[in-house]
Amino acid sequence: MQSPSFPTDPVALAQDLIRCQSVTPADDGAQALLASVLEGMGFEVVHLPFGPVDAPTPNFYAKIGTGRPSLCFAGHTDVVPPGEGWAHDPFAAQIQDGRLYGRGIADMKGGVACSVAAIARFLQNNTLKGSISLLITGDEEGPAHFGTKPVIEWLAARNDVPDFCLLGEPTNPSALGDTIKIGRRGSMNADIVVRGVQGHVAYPHLADNPIHRLLPALSELTGRCLDEGTKWFSPSSLQVTSVDVGNPATNVIPAEARARLNIRFNDRHTGAALTEWIREVVARHAPDSDVTVSISGEAFLTQPGPAVQCLERAVQDVTGRQPKLDTGGGTSDARFISQHCAVAEFGLVGATMHKRDEHVDVSTLEDLTQIYLTFMERFGL
Amino acid sequence: MQSPSFPTDPVALAQDLIRCQSVTPADDGAQALLASVLEGMGFEVVHLPFGPVDAPTPNFYAKIGTGRPSLCFAGHTDVVPPGEGWAHDPFAAQIQDGRLYGRGIADMKGGVACSVAAIARFLQNNTLKGSISLLITGDEEGPAHFGTKPVIEWLAARNDVPDFCLLGEPTNPSALGDTIKIGRRGSMNADIVVRGVQGHVAYPHLADNPIHRLLPALSELTGRCLDEGTKWFSPSSLQVTSVDVGNPATNVIPAEARARLNIRFNDRHTGAALTEWIREVVARHAPDSDVTVSISGEAFLTQPGPAVQCLERAVQDVTGRQPKLDTGGGTSDARFISQHCAVAEFGLVGATMHKRDEHVDVSTLEDLTQIYLTFMERFGL
Ligand SMILES: [Zn+2]
Ligand SMILES: [Zn+2]
Repeated sequence: MQSPSFPTDPVALAQDLIRCQSVTPADDGAQALLASVLEGMGFEVVHLPFGPVDAPTPNFYAKIGTGRPSLCFAGHTDVVPPGEGWAHDPFAAQIQDGRLYGRGIADMKGGVACSVAAIARFLQNNTLKGSISLLITGDEEGPAHFGTKPVIEWLAARNDVPDFCLLGEPTNPSALGDTIKIGRRGSMNADIVVRGVQGHVAYPHLADNPIHRLLPALSELTGRCLDEGTKWFSPSSLQVTSVDVGNPATNVIPAEARARLNIRFNDRHTGAALTEWIREVVARHAPDSDVTVSISGEAFLTQPGPAVQCLERAVQDVTGRQPKLDTGGGTSDARFISQHCAVAEFGLVGATMHKRDEHVDVSTLEDLTQIYLTFMERFGL
Repeated sequence: MQSPSFPTDPVALAQDLIRCQSVTPADDGAQALLASVLEGMGFEVVHLPFGPVDAPTPNFYAKIGTGRPSLCFAGHTDVVPPGEGWAHDPFAAQIQDGRLYGRGIADMKGGVACSVAAIARFLQNNTLKGSISLLITGDEEGPAHFGTKPVIEWLAARNDVPDFCLLGEPTNPSALGDTIKIGRRGSMNADIVVRGVQGHVAYPHLADNPIHRLLPALSELTGRCLDEGTKWFSPSSLQVTSVDVGNPATNVIPAEARARLNIRFNDRHTGAALTEWIREVVARHAPDSDVTVSISGEAFLTQPGPAVQCLERAVQDVTGRQPKLDTGGGTSDARFISQHCAVAEFGLVGATMHKRDEHVDVSTLEDLTQIYLTFMERFGL
């Protein structure tokens, strides 16, 4: 048996990961690299490809220890395309003036590297009482159908759901220590098509204007105050994003009218209940209509308990700053994890994520590693 | 001095007119033909070209007699394009199975020919006590800016407005004697542009959704009952004909939203008052907005008095049918005439107007000529 090796430097590991050109859905060796490092520390790695047999999504679950508490670091190795206009090679992982440049360094190969380095430091200096795992997907930036969702379901089916999950997305808007995310709003889109009867404006009684049916439906939908917000969530918001008829004739009542809306909703609502409400309102005003709904994610909230408190204190210990507990912004894979497991999100500074010349200060990689390490110690692993 | 000649046959004159290919704005000799026939009967013809010097709209005013009452037959010599798919040459004026085919025979060269033939018969058999005129334009089917409108204004400026005007548009939906039009609804279009502030749907407080401003404005506009209709008019009707945003992104609040509406209004309203109302409503809901209004015509009504009664009885005498007094349908040049002069409309059967194989039964040309003649006698010319 080989003696374990502990990669305690997050910077070198982050650079190795960035040099894998894992633009979603490509992997380019990123997961094999990580799996090999984790196996070197004594982890058991299970590869969990899901999706089409000819092009499955690469995922893996790695675990060490069997005791409690059990902590899981979650993350993704895929990145968004670099786009144009970089001053630095997006896959060279160059360090310049104290900054490490590369596509995915903030979102979120840097976070993954910090969690591995923190685990390495912990295992070097502690006897593991609980268990530590990593849930890594290669499809967070893509459709995300065959990534974190089936992996957490696989864990649930094995009764191996961890006690707490820490997702290393770049939650800090401008400085390390800004923000811990303890929930996310849900998001859904609805496409509404209302059909009427075309006719001449001079003879409205022979026509049925679909716009005149769509308007009161949209007014009723936009007129409802969904909620006033909660302690942790801003108010839910419905926004009509487009209304389209495309009728060039000023003297013709059109046959059809369309609208699209998006709802960002907090944990007072579910996608299913909102869908039923939209369908009821539209059908009442426009019997001949279709409503197509797509729920991107349900709202979730991890009530701040001992685990979140450990994370807050770890952030304070290392950065001296009091992180804000927040639920704003878009969606993340935490929406899938939250269906089975308490989850919070804390990672690097996301100011340049998805932009050209994505970078982080090199010092934040060391600080985040220390935060994760302190968290593990406080969590009682 | 030549002795007068009286073209008492409406069919031959209608055929001559149809053979002039006067597809608006072309004239192709139609007005010269008519003017020559009228001069042959003793009319004084004044040509009244209005509009651009290099391409004026041909119009003329022809008058005989100076006494009262004064009656004016109004009409147009231009026609809409024939389009495709005719079984008959649209400009050959063929007669087949008792029908006369040709572009404009119903709308309204047939009506013009009948008025000239009726006048010829009247002048042959009567001593003219009053006066008779014809107001003929070559731009009714086009923009109509330089047609009947400036001609009637020219008459008003000369204090020569007739006592009554009879416009020979094809008012009968299916059989001669169906309908006399004693008014028309007004028509106006409004283009509404509402500007907001673009933003991400996740941060609605940083944006200003123009759709959410446009919706209540349109709801208020469509929600008002303009009127319940009158004895002579159906209710005024506002129809939103298009709403357009064209935002392809489901997560973006757009910067601008547009709508178009048309109002068909009766004589309870004016275009100016409706314009002011629309502007007030839109500005209240959407301060950063533009409303562009185009008034195609004001509503007008000729209260049924002695002249209309003469016309009703003439129709009854010839056809045995009781015509309906009506104000429905689209606009006509009567909207310009009505600003200065009582006007009614009665002509041929319009079932095929603006369609391919436009035609009328040849017998209706004789019947309409008799109706016009009977009307002149009853009117006391
Ligand atoms: Zn991410
Ligand atoms: Zn006409």
